[in-house]
Amino acid sequence: MAAITGPEIERLIQLLSKLPGLGPRSARRAVLQLIQKKETLLSPLAQAMADAVEKACICSTCGNADTQDPCTICRDRTRDPLTICVVEDVGDLWALERAGAHKGRYHVLGGVLSALDGVGPDDLNIGALIERVTKDSVKEVILAMNATVDGQTTAHYITDRLEGLDVSISRLAHGVPVGGELDYLDDGTLAAAMKSRRPF
Amino acid sequence: MAAITGPEIERLIQLLSKLPGLGPRSARRAVLQLIQKKETLLSPLAQAMADAVEKACICSTCGNADTQDPCTICRDRTRDPLTICVVEDVGDLWALERAGAHKGRYHVLGGVLSALDGVGPDDLNIGALIERVTKDSVKEVILAMNATVDGQTTAHYITDRLEGLDVSISRLAHGVPVGGELDYLDDGTLAAAMKSRRPF
Repeated sequence: MAAITGPEIERLIQLLSKLPGLGPRSARRAVLQLIQKKETLLSPLAQAMADAVEKACICSTCGNADTQDPCTICRDRTRDPLTICVVEDVGDLWALERAGAHKGRYHVLGGVLSALDGVGPDDLNIGALIERVTKDSVKEVILAMNATVDGQTTAHYITDRLEGLDVSISRLAHGVPVGGELDYLDDGTLAAAMKSRRPF
Repeated sequence: MAAITGPEIERLIQLLSKLPGLGPRSARRAVLQLIQKKETLLSPLAQAMADAVEKACICSTCGNADTQDPCTICRDRTRDPLTICVVEDVGDLWALERAGAHKGRYHVLGGVLSALDGVGPDDLNIGALIERVTKDSVKEVILAMNATVDGQTTAHYITDRLEGLDVSISRLAHGVPVGGELDYLDDGTLAAAMKSRRPF
């Protein structure tokens, strides 16, 4: 196919289409929007990307994505440093923060153990977690992995590794999602919700 | 909510979420991906955006988005300058180009007439089309508007405006999409396909 448009625009489409949630077609639509709103959207976005290239980094303590290292959360002295919530990835950390569900620190594993995908303990940020727990005399580790087989396998593995250290280990509760309807829930969730029922 | 991450990252998420096809949640996922692939994705994308800011422009002849004015298509001397295909927007132009369906030039209207949205003839690139047809002695105008009510209204309006000029006017054929199944087609398309049937 002959070139429809300039190489710079083709390249922008090609790169944007690599983002999760965008394919070639939606990337083209996005780029057209960007060019048509050059002053109000394309220019600010180009500037924001340049800023991010310069400043974005991964916190060397917890693995959060931020523009400073240690990150905003690790620097926050009002947060309990003795409670660490372990999550699979930064997206999960942000989700818990948006919910305001945790007032301690975090630890991002960077994935889960997976025999199928060939992910072993050394590929994850587990060693650093054990070191943090030991060095900082952490009191509680909250395992907030996804409720998938791989997530729970990883949780069990971390529990094994933490054995012998003076730290309590907890996990997120399983149950009916708030606002959820029983009729739409899977059997496993319903069984878990029934088993962990609380006094009313 | 307290800041989870740095202001530069927040701003990047906010701007990306304005792209068509991305919302706040997918923009966050995209930004996390970008930060984690800083060297291979974020940096090249930032550079591509900066290039696009500098070079992207709208062709003053036909309205195509390109990095030069006149655009690649208007500059291409192998393309027939006497056949102009009129489209609603640049995305439609690119779609026809990908299909290799047209060997002439284009004219982008920048929308369609719409009483509901308050879009009148002066809001569209119609005057420039009439001028091109007159000045360049164009032989054929192909109306390739979408097969919507507004698209067809616009096509009729342009036909009226071109009346009296020595130019033949055509429109895209209606019919069964190639690879389409009759059972899934709407009545209007089936009726149009039957009415415009061709000898086998």
